[in-house]
Amino acid sequence: MRKESVKVIIWGLGAMGKGMAEMMLKKQGFEIVGVVGRGAKIGKSMYDFLDMPKGDRPDVLIGAAEDVIVPGAADVVLLCTDSFVKGAFDKIKFVAERKINVVSSAEEMAYPKAQEPELAVEIDKIAKANGVTVLGTGINPGLMMDLLVVIFTGACESVDHITARRVNSLSPFGPAVMEEQGIGITEEDFRKKSAAGELAGHVGFAESIHMIGDAIGWKVEEVTQTMEPIVTDVDRKSPYGFAKAGDVAGCAMKGFGKVAGEIKIEMDHPQQIEPHLGGTDTGDYIIIKGTPDVNMANKPEIPGGIGTIAMCVNMIPHVINAKAGLKTMLDLPVPRAIMGDVRAMIEED
Amino acid sequence: MRKESVKVIIWGLGAMGKGMAEMMLKKQGFEIVGVVGRGAKIGKSMYDFLDMPKGDRPDVLIGAAEDVIVPGAADVVLLCTDSFVKGAFDKIKFVAERKINVVSSAEEMAYPKAQEPELAVEIDKIAKANGVTVLGTGINPGLMMDLLVVIFTGACESVDHITARRVNSLSPFGPAVMEEQGIGITEEDFRKKSAAGELAGHVGFAESIHMIGDAIGWKVEEVTQTMEPIVTDVDRKSPYGFAKAGDVAGCAMKGFGKVAGEIKIEMDHPQQIEPHLGGTDTGDYIIIKGTPDVNMANKPEIPGGIGTIAMCVNMIPHVINAKAGLKTMLDLPVPRAIMGDVRAMIEED
Ligand SMILES: NC(=O)c1ccc[n+]([C@@H]2O[C@H](COP(=O)([O-])OP(=O)(O)OC[C@H]3O[C@@H](n4cnc5c(N)ncnc54)[C@H](OP(=O)(O)O)[C@@H]3O)[C@@H](O)[C@H]2O)c1
Ligand SMILES: NC(=O)c1ccc[n+]([C@@H]2O[C@H](COP(=O)([O-])OP(=O)(O)OC[C@H]3O[C@@H](n4cnc5c(N)ncnc54)[C@H](OP(=O)(O)O)[C@@H]3O)[C@@H](O)[C@H]2O)c1
Repeated sequence: MRKESVKVIIWGLGAMGKGMAEMMLKKQGFEIVGVVGRGAKIGKSMYDFLDMPKGDRPDVLIGAAEDVIVPGAADVVLLCTDSFVKGAFDKIKFVAERKINVVSSAEEMAYPKAQEPELAVEIDKIAKANGVTVLGTGINPGLMMDLLVVIFTGACESVDHITARRVNSLSPFGPAVMEEQGIGITEEDFRKKSAAGELAGHVGFAESIHMIGDAIGWKVEEVTQTMEPIVTDVDRKSPYGFAKAGDVAGCAMKGFGKVAGEIKIEMDHPQQIEPHLGGTDTGDYIIIKGTPDVNMANKPEIPGGIGTIAMCVNMIPHVINAKAGLKTMLDLPVPRAIMGDVRAMIEED
Repeated sequence: MRKESVKVIIWGLGAMGKGMAEMMLKKQGFEIVGVVGRGAKIGKSMYDFLDMPKGDRPDVLIGAAEDVIVPGAADVVLLCTDSFVKGAFDKIKFVAERKINVVSSAEEMAYPKAQEPELAVEIDKIAKANGVTVLGTGINPGLMMDLLVVIFTGACESVDHITARRVNSLSPFGPAVMEEQGIGITEEDFRKKSAAGELAGHVGFAESIHMIGDAIGWKVEEVTQTMEPIVTDVDRKSPYGFAKAGDVAGCAMKGFGKVAGEIKIEMDHPQQIEPHLGGTDTGDYIIIKGTPDVNMANKPEIPGGIGTIAMCVNMIPHVINAKAGLKTMLDLPVPRAIMGDVRAMIEED
């Protein structure tokens, strides 16, 4: 087993970065060697932002990227700042050029080829030139509506049609998510904002659909998506959201992947606060028409926050072990929990 | 894309080998270059044993291993002859020494370290010395009660307890399986044969339990298992089985993996003919107590025959691409269906 601890830097101590820090502090063999923040966070202790006491651990002060991310400082940077490849690109380049591996939680980084093929080529080049691995992952995209679909197709002689459905609760999420999803606004407002491109909704269908298509050898010709308000019959209240009866309690998105002129891959992803008040049971579903059929349900859904935190941390050993370059979840061994010392998962070479 | 077709030899044209041949004949980029049989099969056409006409394809005559498996003849041998590592070992060695990769459907080969650690080391050495990859896979062990459990733990920050349940129908299976599982005998006979070790039941708990334990870093100290008859209230009849009311219609096995003195991994696998006649819905279930919990059901179960055929064929590109050595499903990228030309999945190097 490797003697040195697995050294990690967290860039972006928001909801995800904080959760990853707390998860790693509970495990054996990890060492958080730095945190990159900005503005008022700089100079403060990481522990000021965690729900875990410092205890007798050495302190970790939040710093600027230039000061924290230096060659040899860490094995991996967990980059938890962005949703889009365009926003993450310069940061990934910065880390890779300092010869440190990257795991990004950016939705588009789960399959950057889907929407940013040129930047994906660029990232691959930079990663290879610097001998590091770059991976994007998360719960969705990253697992529930794509990699898990792919593994089930592994049991199929042939596949005719795929539906991935994720019915989840937005109640645990904060104000930013409430706004992006249109929670609490009127149906009319929702439609206006949606038409104006002002509601982000779910980011990831293009990534999930292309990941599945490329994995099984379906050429995806076109990805389209729709967004509809989920109007509530009753008042619904979550920690950061409120929708009164008649207003919007959620955002239902669908995605469609066309293969040889036919819709072959469908994504169905209604997200809302307090789904039980609308009589909705949450869950993850995979329905494959093929030989054989697959009819999977996981109820309730894997929560998006914990799931993403776990996926990013759990992929660290695979990323350290991988060959250099831009990788996706399709290239690496299956994700797995880390219940022992993470150092035992690092291959000696 | 690679120009040459992916050349495959099938060793053992039983139920699995036949299904794999038929599957590959329907796909692009595969070429079945040989079949190894024995006894009366030798010299006959492979097509005599398939439910597919030869058409204008070149014939494939069944031959002896020495004649069919020669260096350069194929990329992969699909070895579908055995359940146990001991039985498969000499055949794997024979193939590997001819510098051809091996995919084996033998249950114990799914995780040979579990029951045959010395032979596993030996196979790894032989594979590396000859620059080839050896993989064991199948539906169970291989996917439903192990690899699929592992991928779900990837979404977990921590795991406390795992149950994998597979409730399946034995109706599609032939006379050998009916005998191994005790179908149609009396309860008393079942208990006698079971005590005498004369009922094979399911082979694979040790493999699945160790695979999960090693994946997530739980040291499995002990694997135990139990076997109970499923006694039917009504007459049940399947193509190759019959159990009259009061007799044995199935074999219910449980497996237990102990970690740090506690049962942490449980396998529950009742197999029977015509389960609906006993009021039993079939399905695959994964229940993880952890952060978060996982509560997966796939109903009905992925059928064992088609599933194993698909897994073995679908892993061929991964095995060709892998580094030399004995690999398990934990080491390779996730299995996936092959809906395009398989040659597009082969990495150029
Ligand atoms: N694939 C998936 O399943 C999945 C799931 C969850 C999240 N995500 C994505 O992952 C990203 C992080 O999620 P989150 O919930 O943690 O968001 P968040 O709570 O908004 O946190 C983002 C953090 O990044 C920091 N940050 C942004 N730019 C920075 C920079 N240039 N330098 C230093 N710090 C910077 C922010 O700092 P300030 O507080 O100073 O602004 C904030 O602390 C989001 O884009 C989210 O959409 C993906
Ligand atoms: N992991 C899983 O999920 C899974 C699932 C299904 C099956 N399996 C295993 O895979 C193996 C194959 O299954 P199956 O259903 O195909 O069994 P099967 O129908 O009994 O077929 C086995 C075939 O191998 C041939 N064979 C055996 N030894 C041979 C030798 N030395 N040379 C040439 N041919 C030989 C047999 O030939 P003859 O007809 O001449 O005897 C027979 O055709 C079994 O051990 C089974 O338990 C595993």
